[in-house]
Amino acid sequence: MNFSSKLLEKAVEEFSKLPGIGKKTALRLVLNLLKREKEDVRRFSNAIVDLREGIQYCTKCHNISDLEICQLCANPNRDDSVLCIVEDIRDVMAVENTQQFKGLYHVLGGVISPMEGVGPQHLSIDSLLRKVDNGEVNEIIFALSSTMEGDTTNFYIFKKLKNYDIKVSTIARGIAFGDELEYADEITLGRSIVNRLPYENAIKS
Amino acid sequence: MNFSSKLLEKAVEEFSKLPGIGKKTALRLVLNLLKREKEDVRRFSNAIVDLREGIQYCTKCHNISDLEICQLCANPNRDDSVLCIVEDIRDVMAVENTQQFKGLYHVLGGVISPMEGVGPQHLSIDSLLRKVDNGEVNEIIFALSSTMEGDTTNFYIFKKLKNYDIKVSTIARGIAFGDELEYADEITLGRSIVNRLPYENAIKS
Repeated sequence: MNFSSKLLEKAVEEFSKLPGIGKKTALRLVLNLLKREKEDVRRFSNAIVDLREGIQYCTKCHNISDLEICQLCANPNRDDSVLCIVEDIRDVMAVENTQQFKGLYHVLGGVISPMEGVGPQHLSIDSLLRKVDNGEVNEIIFALSSTMEGDTTNFYIFKKLKNYDIKVSTIARGIAFGDELEYADEITLGRSIVNRLPYENAIKS
Repeated sequence: MNFSSKLLEKAVEEFSKLPGIGKKTALRLVLNLLKREKEDVRRFSNAIVDLREGIQYCTKCHNISDLEICQLCANPNRDDSVLCIVEDIRDVMAVENTQQFKGLYHVLGGVISPMEGVGPQHLSIDSLLRKVDNGEVNEIIFALSSTMEGDTTNFYIFKKLKNYDIKVSTIARGIAFGDELEYADEITLGRSIVNRLPYENAIKS
């Protein structure tokens, strides 16, 4: 792309570093910002810098939070002996939306991925093991993505937990609600047969 | 969406004001920025503010430019008696990419759209008419979008040009290169028959 302005080129370049944003989309977004009031654009830009500079993480679950202990961890009605292990804040929000989980979360901050240079030391696994070691936890539920990296991370943590007397489970894999069998992939369909449920369980929720 | 942090919520809200960016995408983009170095995020934010505060438009063609007269208008090899009327900078870039146009541009800054409250007075139509009145222009080519608003704008300007002795044309509408006839819409196919070309012309370019 040939830009008629260096300032424009720079803004488009910065936008196109975002995931899933190509040069054309970046240009569209930048031109939209250009049409707005200066005050408006300054607010946009400040919101981003304020977040990056002022970001805090809950010291208990490592979720993004404005307080030292997040609202979930501080809630006395939640069962702090059950931990749901998730990758990031989006997964916390997704599980919370189901309203089916009343325990607490532990946000890893990613999954083990040698391809992207992410090892166990980059994730908040140590603090998870400390919680387990302190006897605070009775049950751990893995809710990581069903990918090679997610499974590797599950297995890594599972091995570390072997010597503790706690329940460890993963969220169920299977045919999604509303999905047709003929379009399901073989692995998912195969697993859903192996891990079939007593009919009474399946209709409970 | 329930956010665990006000700062996060604000940043996501600002991002989701951009066209085509919903809340989920906004959250993904914001989390990507969060993972970057502070320096990086400041550069992103500065690029946007710098553009908005420092933006300049070419005084001749109204295109975005860092100079008073843009590189295209300042180029002595271009024919300044032929003007291509476009909506915004993206269209200038699109036409320039074809390398088929050697005249100059006139950027309207939009199209007449009563629905969005854009009238002729919001567009740079007056300065176009001044150029024509000064006798600088021999030919005008409309290259606006093939929409109701684009056609309205074409017609509005066309009427204003009636008393001047200049050539006025619009870019050709027709079946796109590589398109199959059976998938073309009726209006386009109909027009492409009415406005058929002598075969010798069609194979020239």
